[in-house]
Amino acid sequence: MARRLFELAGQDQARRFSPYCWRARMALAHKGLEAETVIWRFTEGEAIAFSGQNKVPVLVDGDRVVADSWVIARYLEDHYPDRPSLFPGGVAAGRFVASWADEVLNPMLVRLIVSDIPPLLDEPARRYFIANREVRFGQPLAEVTANREARLPELRQALGPARAVLAERPFLGGEAPDYRDYAVFGSFQWARVVSPLALLAPDDPVAAWRERMLDLHGGLARATPALAG
Amino acid sequence: MARRLFELAGQDQARRFSPYCWRARMALAHKGLEAETVIWRFTEGEAIAFSGQNKVPVLVDGDRVVADSWVIARYLEDHYPDRPSLFPGGVAAGRFVASWADEVLNPMLVRLIVSDIPPLLDEPARRYFIANREVRFGQPLAEVTANREARLPELRQALGPARAVLAERPFLGGEAPDYRDYAVFGSFQWARVVSPLALLAPDDPVAAWRERMLDLHGGLARATPALAG
Repeated sequence: MARRLFELAGQDQARRFSPYCWRARMALAHKGLEAETVIWRFTEGEAIAFSGQNKVPVLVDGDRVVADSWVIARYLEDHYPDRPSLFPGGVAAGRFVASWADEVLNPMLVRLIVSDIPPLLDEPARRYFIANREVRFGQPLAEVTANREARLPELRQALGPARAVLAERPFLGGEAPDYRDYAVFGSFQWARVVSPLALLAPDDPVAAWRERMLDLHGGLARATPALAG
Repeated sequence: MARRLFELAGQDQARRFSPYCWRARMALAHKGLEAETVIWRFTEGEAIAFSGQNKVPVLVDGDRVVADSWVIARYLEDHYPDRPSLFPGGVAAGRFVASWADEVLNPMLVRLIVSDIPPLLDEPARRYFIANREVRFGQPLAEVTANREARLPELRQALGPARAVLAERPFLGGEAPDYRDYAVFGSFQWARVVSPLALLAPDDPVAAWRERMLDLHGGLARATPALAG
C-alpha cells in the first residue's frame, strides 16, 4: 500500500504552508522515504476523520495511520531504524527544540504573518480561517500584524538559543541536520510560503542556516512557491 | 597543583548562589573531579584578575585558567574525555539549552528574586549589588520584584520546552543527566538559595526533576543552605 501524507495547501495546491506538515515532510525526506502528497484544506475535516482527529499532517503508511508531527517523527524513527536517525543525539534534544518552536517561535511568528494567509486560501477555507483566527486573537487579523516590522527585533532576539548553536555549527543538530532542524525550519518555511516579510537580517547565522535547509534533500523546500526570498 | 573553582558566595560562605558557578560545580561533579572552592564575593575583582576578566566561575586546573561556565564545560569535556560525557548527545544540544536558560529563563527569574539577594550579602557587596542592579533595571529592586506571585504563571509557561522533555524522561539529557540539566538546574539552585519564593507547582514535572537534581552527586546541591524548600 502506498505511503501518503496529508498536507495543508492554499488555493494553489503547490502552496503548502503548515509548519507541522513541513516537519513531517522533511522528516520523511531525511529517512529517504517517499510519500504521495494528499492535498488537504482547512474545510476538509471529513477527509481525515479516519485518523480520529481533525488536523494535518496525517501520515498513512500501509495500514498504519499516524497523526501529529511529533508522533509521526517518533513513528518514523521507530519503524525505520535502519534509515538515518532523526534523533542521533537522543529524543530529548528533539523534544526540547520542537517544543521551543511550538511555544516560543510559532506564537511570535503567527502574529507577524497571519494576515498574509487568507488571500492564499479558497473562499470556504478563507471564511473558516478568518473567523477562527479572529476569535483566537480577539481582533481583526490586519490588527494582529499591524506595525509588524517594529516587532522583528523581538523575534530575532527570541532566536537566541538557535543562533548560539548556528554561530558555531552548520545545523541545530550539529554537523548534520536532524529533527531539531526540521522542527524549527517548518516555522520558517511556513512564513516564507505565505508572507513577503523579511524575518531575518541577511548576516544572521540563522539566515545562512535557513538557506542550507532550503537546499537539503534535493532542494525540496525551496521548490515550493514562496512569497519571501 | 590542586584544582580550584572560584565560586560566588554571600556573607555566609556556604550560601553559594551563582547559577553559572552551579553549572561549573555540577559539571565537575559529573566528571567525578574534585575542586577546592575559593570563596569569591562581588567586590573581589582583583582576586580573579589573573583570569583576564571579572566574573566567576573561574576554574584553575593545574596551570590552566578557564573562565565562563560554558568554556569551563567545554574544557572539562575536552580535557577529561575518559570521564562521563557532559554532552553525550552532542555539544549542540547543550548549547541550545544553556542559551535558552541564559536568555529566557534567567531574565525572568532575576525579576522574581533579585530583591532577595542584598540581605544575604556583606555590606560592601550589598552596596555594589544594589547600585549595579538598580542601574540595570532602572528602578529599586523591591519594585522589580513587586507583585511577583502574579508573574509566576509566566515563568511556569516559559518552562514549556523543559516540561515537554521532563514529562516523558527523568532528565533533560534523557535517561541520565548531562550539561543540559546542569545549565537549567543552576538557575533553580540560584533561586532556591536566595529566595523563599515557590517557583513551581508541586505537581509540575519540573519540580520532580529539580528534586532529582538536588539528589545527584551525593546530594551536592541539596547540602547548600537554601531559603526555598
